[in-house]
Amino acid sequence: MTGADVFFVLIGAILVFAMHGGFAFLEVGTVRRKNQVNALVKILVDFSISTIAYFFVGFAVAYGTTFFFSAAVLSGNAPGPDGVAFAASGLDLVKFFFLATFAAAIPAIISGGIAERAKFWPQAMATAIIVGLLYPFFEGLIWGGNYGLQAFFENNLGAPFHDFAGSVVVHAVGGWIALGAILVLGPRIGRYRPGHPNAQGIPPSNIPWLAMGSWMLCIGWFGFNVMTAGSLEGVSGLVALNSLMAMVGGVVAALIAGRNDPGFVHNGALAGLVAVCAGSDVMHPIGSLVTGGVAGALFVITFQLAQNRWKIDDVLGVWPLHGLCGAWGGIACGIFGLEALGGLGGVTFGAQLVGTALGAAYALIVGYAVYLLLNAVMGIRLTEEDEARGADLAIHQISAYPEEDLSAR
Amino acid sequence: MTGADVFFVLIGAILVFAMHGGFAFLEVGTVRRKNQVNALVKILVDFSISTIAYFFVGFAVAYGTTFFFSAAVLSGNAPGPDGVAFAASGLDLVKFFFLATFAAAIPAIISGGIAERAKFWPQAMATAIIVGLLYPFFEGLIWGGNYGLQAFFENNLGAPFHDFAGSVVVHAVGGWIALGAILVLGPRIGRYRPGHPNAQGIPPSNIPWLAMGSWMLCIGWFGFNVMTAGSLEGVSGLVALNSLMAMVGGVVAALIAGRNDPGFVHNGALAGLVAVCAGSDVMHPIGSLVTGGVAGALFVITFQLAQNRWKIDDVLGVWPLHGLCGAWGGIACGIFGLEALGGLGGVTFGAQLVGTALGAAYALIVGYAVYLLLNAVMGIRLTEEDEARGADLAIHQISAYPEEDLSAR
Amino acid sequence: MTGADVFFVLIGAILVFAMHGGFAFLEVGTVRRKNQVNALVKILVDFSISTIAYFFVGFAVAYGTTFFFSAAVLSGNAPGPDGVAFAASGLDLVKFFFLATFAAAIPAIISGGIAERAKFWPQAMATAIIVGLLYPFFEGLIWGGNYGLQAFFENNLGAPFHDFAGSVVVHAVGGWIALGAILVLGPRIGRYRPGHPNAQGIPPSNIPWLAMGSWMLCIGWFGFNVMTAGSLEGVSGLVALNSLMAMVGGVVAALIAGRNDPGFVHNGALAGLVAVCAGSDVMHPIGSLVTGGVAGALFVITFQLAQNRWKIDDVLGVWPLHGLCGAWGGIACGIFGLEALGGLGGVTFGAQLVGTALGAAYALIVGYAVYLLLNAVMGIRLTEEDEARGADLAIHQISAYPEEDLSAR
Repeated sequence: MTGADVFFVLIGAILVFAMHGGFAFLEVGTVRRKNQVNALVKILVDFSISTIAYFFVGFAVAYGTTFFFSAAVLSGNAPGPDGVAFAASGLDLVKFFFLATFAAAIPAIISGGIAERAKFWPQAMATAIIVGLLYPFFEGLIWGGNYGLQAFFENNLGAPFHDFAGSVVVHAVGGWIALGAILVLGPRIGRYRPGHPNAQGIPPSNIPWLAMGSWMLCIGWFGFNVMTAGSLEGVSGLVALNSLMAMVGGVVAALIAGRNDPGFVHNGALAGLVAVCAGSDVMHPIGSLVTGGVAGALFVITFQLAQNRWKIDDVLGVWPLHGLCGAWGGIACGIFGLEALGGLGGVTFGAQLVGTALGAAYALIVGYAVYLLLNAVMGIRLTEEDEARGADLAIHQISAYPEEDLSAR
Repeated sequence: MTGADVFFVLIGAILVFAMHGGFAFLEVGTVRRKNQVNALVKILVDFSISTIAYFFVGFAVAYGTTFFFSAAVLSGNAPGPDGVAFAASGLDLVKFFFLATFAAAIPAIISGGIAERAKFWPQAMATAIIVGLLYPFFEGLIWGGNYGLQAFFENNLGAPFHDFAGSVVVHAVGGWIALGAILVLGPRIGRYRPGHPNAQGIPPSNIPWLAMGSWMLCIGWFGFNVMTAGSLEGVSGLVALNSLMAMVGGVVAALIAGRNDPGFVHNGALAGLVAVCAGSDVMHPIGSLVTGGVAGALFVITFQLAQNRWKIDDVLGVWPLHGLCGAWGGIACGIFGLEALGGLGGVTFGAQLVGTALGAAYALIVGYAVYLLLNAVMGIRLTEEDEARGADLAIHQISAYPEEDLSAR
Repeated sequence: MTGADVFFVLIGAILVFAMHGGFAFLEVGTVRRKNQVNALVKILVDFSISTIAYFFVGFAVAYGTTFFFSAAVLSGNAPGPDGVAFAASGLDLVKFFFLATFAAAIPAIISGGIAERAKFWPQAMATAIIVGLLYPFFEGLIWGGNYGLQAFFENNLGAPFHDFAGSVVVHAVGGWIALGAILVLGPRIGRYRPGHPNAQGIPPSNIPWLAMGSWMLCIGWFGFNVMTAGSLEGVSGLVALNSLMAMVGGVVAALIAGRNDPGFVHNGALAGLVAVCAGSDVMHPIGSLVTGGVAGALFVITFQLAQNRWKIDDVLGVWPLHGLCGAWGGIACGIFGLEALGGLGGVTFGAQLVGTALGAAYALIVGYAVYLLLNAVMGIRLTEEDEARGADLAIHQISAYPEEDLSAR
C-alpha cells in the first residue's frame, strides 16, 4: 500500500515538474525573440536552485524535516535517531519532490513578470532566498500548522484557512511577490511614453510556443491539484472534475471577454486552474465552473488595466493571473465550498478572506523588500544597452536561432 | 482500492486530455501560417464547449447520469435521492472526465478537416450539438447498452459489436461527421482548378509542430486505450502492447507507402493507433502489427485519392485517418480478434462489419445534416476575403508571430 | 495487485516512450534547418524498427522469452505449453513494452551523433541489428543474469555489477556504439579545415526545440528510473529524489562550466540524469547531487574537447553525454552507493569499474564493426551533394517549412 502511495505522489511530482516546462514555453512565446533563450535558461536554473534551497533549508523551515541521514533511514529501511522516522518505500522523499515542484513555481511565476529586463544572477539569488526562507515560512503557517495561525483562524473565524492545492499559498504568494519585484524593477524601455495614455504594444513573438506552454501547464495541473491528497486513501475524483470545470470556465470567459485573442484564451485556462486550487476538494463542479469563469474574465480585465491604466509592466501578466486569480480562488473557496451552495462545507468566508489577504500582503511586502535589497546590493536590472540587445545575447552570448544569425550575416 | 481506480482512470483522462494538445499542434503544423492561431484557439475552445455540453446534457444521453446533486453525493460521501448512487472517492467523476475527453475528440477530429476556411462560432455551435446529443446517442447505443442494439447484435450476429476503445464510436464517427462537414463546406479557394487533374499543392507550414502534435497524440493514446478498462481489476497489458505494435506497424507501412514523407510517417503512427482501438483487448500483438500496418498504408493511399481524385479538401486527412482507418479497425477486430488467429475471441466478423457500417452511416448523415442546417441558419464559411487573409487575422485579429509582423511593417 | 503493477510499469513505459519524442526534438533543435525533418522521421522510424526487432528477436536474446503464443496465454488467462507461463493481467507484456523503450534508446542516442550526413536505410538496418542482437546480448549479461557474468563479478569483485536503470547498459552502450559509428562516418563537410585548430562552428538551428527535447527527456526520465523497480512492492521514492538531485546538479554545474550557454544547461540536466541511473536506488541524495554535478561539468568539458581537440564530429555530443557520463555513472554508483558515504551499500568500486569498462569496450567494438560492415556493403554516408542540400530534401523530398519554400520561390 505504501508503494502505491509512492507511485501516486510521484506521478503528481512528475506532472508538476512538467508544468515548469510549461512556464518556460509560455514565457518563450510571450517575450520577444531576443529574450527567448533567457526565458528557457532562467526557468530551468531557477527550478534547480529552488530544489537545492528547498532540500537543504526550505523544507525544514516549513515542516521541520531535514534529510541529513543515511539513505537507509531516508527510505524507511532503517530506524533513524530519536524522533526521526521516515515512511517506508521512500514515501517522504517523493513527498519532498512533490512539494519542491510547488516551491519552485514561485520563481517561475516571478520570472514571467520581470522578463526582458532583469539580470540573471540577482534573480538566481532571489530564488534561493525566496524558496529557502520566505515561501516555506508562509507554507508552514498554512500547510505545516506552524505558530498556531490555523488554530487562531479556527477559533476566531469558524474554520482554518482552507487552501487545498495552493491558490493562495503558491499562486497568490508567487503573484504578489512578482508584483513587488516588478515595481522595483520598473517597466521595459519604451513601454510607457509621456503623452500616450496606453502602453506601447510589445507584441509576443510566438503564439504556438505560448500555447504549448499553456498546454503543458494545464496537463500538469491535474497532478498539482489531485495529488495534493498525498495518498490513495485521500484521493478525490471531485478535485479532478472541479479542476476540469474551472479550466473550461476560464477558457470560455476569456474567449468572450478577450474577443477571441489567443493569449487571453490560453491564459484563461490557467486563470481558471489557479482559482480552483484552493477549493477544488470542497466545491461543487458547477461552483467550480463559475469560479473559473470569473477568473478568466478577471484576468482579461485586470491584465488590460494593469498594463495600460496602472502602468505595471508585468510581461506575462503574472500578477493578474496568479496574484489576483489566486486571491479570488482563496475567497471563492469560502463561497462555493459552503454546503448551501452544494459544496462539502468545512470552510468559512471569513477565514478565506482573511487568510487570502494575509497571504497577498505578506508576499507583496517580502517580495518588494527582497528585490529592493538585491537592487541595492548588486543591481537587478540589465543596462539599457543590454536590454536593447536582448537578454539572450547579453547574458547567454547566443540567440534562440543561431543558424539564422549566421546566414543573416 | 477505489482510490487506486480513481488514480488509474484519472491518469487515463489526463493522457487523453493531452491528446487534445496533440490535435492542436498537428493542425498548427499542417495548415498555413495564417491559420495557426485559429487552430490553437479552436481546439481549446471546442474542448471547453464539449466538456460543458457533455456535463450538462451528453453524459445523461449516453448513460442516464446527471450531476445535479450536492458535492457530497457526487463524491460518494453521502447517499443520494432514490436510485442515485455515486461511487466512493469520486470515481464516477473521473470516469466522466475520462469519457468527456473522448467526446471532445469528435470536434477535434472535425476541426482538422474543415481548417483554413470555416467560421468560428458556427463550429462552436456544431460542437455543442454534436457532443451534447449526436455523439452520446451513438455512444450510448454501443457502450451504454441503450435501446437494445447490442442485444440485437448478440442475437442475430453472434456477438455484440465490440469496440473496446472507440475505433468506431470515437474515430470513425468523428471522421465521417467530418466528411459531412467538409462536403457542405467545400474546398479551399484555389485548391482545385478546372483543367488540372490533381489538387493544387497547399504545403504544410511547419513539420516540427506537425510532429509534436503526432507525438502528443501517440503518448496520450496509451491512456485512451488502456484506461478504457475503467478499473485496475480489468486492466490488461495486452491492450498496451497491441497499441504499441499497431503504432509501429502504421509507421513502417506509411514510411514505405509514403516514400519517407514526414507527414505520412507521423500520421501513419496515428492510423495504426486509430485502427487498434476496437480490438486492442482481444487481438494478438502480431495481429495488431498487421492491423496497424494495413491502416498506415490505407491512410497514405486514401489520403492521396481523396485529395486528388475525389476532390475532397480534407486538410489534415481526418476522413482517411479517423473515418477509414477507424472503420478498418472495427472490422479488423472481427478478424484478428478471432481465436483462430490467436485472439481472445468473443467477437464475430458479422457484428463488427454491421456495427462499423452503422456507425459510419449514422455519422455521415448527422454530420451532413448538422452542417447543412448551420450553413442555412448562420453560414459556416469565411468570406473569400477573410479566407485569403487567413483565419488568424480575420477571426482573432492577430497572427501567430505578432512580433514578426511588427518588424515587417 | 497485479493490475496495479501493470499500471505502474505501463506508466513507466509511456514516460520512456515520451522520451523518444525528446530525442527527436533535441536533435531538431541542434541540427541545421535542412536536417530537421530527417531527425524527426529517423527517431520515429528507428523506434518502430527497434520495437519489431526486439519483439521478434531481441527480447528472447536477453531474457529467453518469445511471444509466439495465443493472446490468452500471453495475457496470463490460459496456461501455456510446458515451461511457458505469463503473468496475470498481461504484466509481462507491459514489461516488454517498458524494456522495448529502453532498447530503442540505443538508436536514438546514435542518431544524434551521426546526424546531418548519414543515409537513412543503412541506419535503419543498423538499428535492427543492434536492437535485435547486440544490445540485448549485453543487456542479458547484466540484467538477465546470462552466461554467469554477474556470478563471476560477485565471486571475484565482491558484488554483481550494479546498474539499476542503465547508466551503462543503456547510456554508455548507446554512447560508445555511437562513437564507433561516428568514427566510421567521419566529420561533416567543412567541419574541420587544415590550419584551423578548432572545429568550424555549425550553429544549432533552434534553441526552443532543443529545450523542448530536453524537457521531454527530463520528464520521461523519472519513469525510466523509478519504474525500473518493476513492481509497486519494489518501488523506491529514493530513486525519484536521487534522479531529481542529479538533474539539478547537472544543470547548475553545466551553467557554470558552460558560461550560461543554453545548450550546455539543457544537456547538463540530461548529463546528471544519465549518470544517476546506475546508482539511483542505492546512493544518498547528496551523493546524487554530486554525481550529477560532476556529470554536468564532465559533459561541458569533454564536449568541447571532442569537438575541437579530438576532432570527433559528434553533432549532439552523444558520446560525452551518454558514453562518458554513463560510464561516470557506473563508477559513481561504486562510490556514492557505499554505506560509508551514506548509501545503501551492496556495491563495490571494483565491480562497478570493471563492469563499466566492459560495457564501453563491448559497445565501441561492436558499434565500430557494425558500421564498418554496413559501410562496406551499402555505404552509410550521403553523397557530398546530398549532404550540402540537406537530408530533408535529399531523403524526404520536403523541407521542415514547406510553405516558406513555396513563398520563397
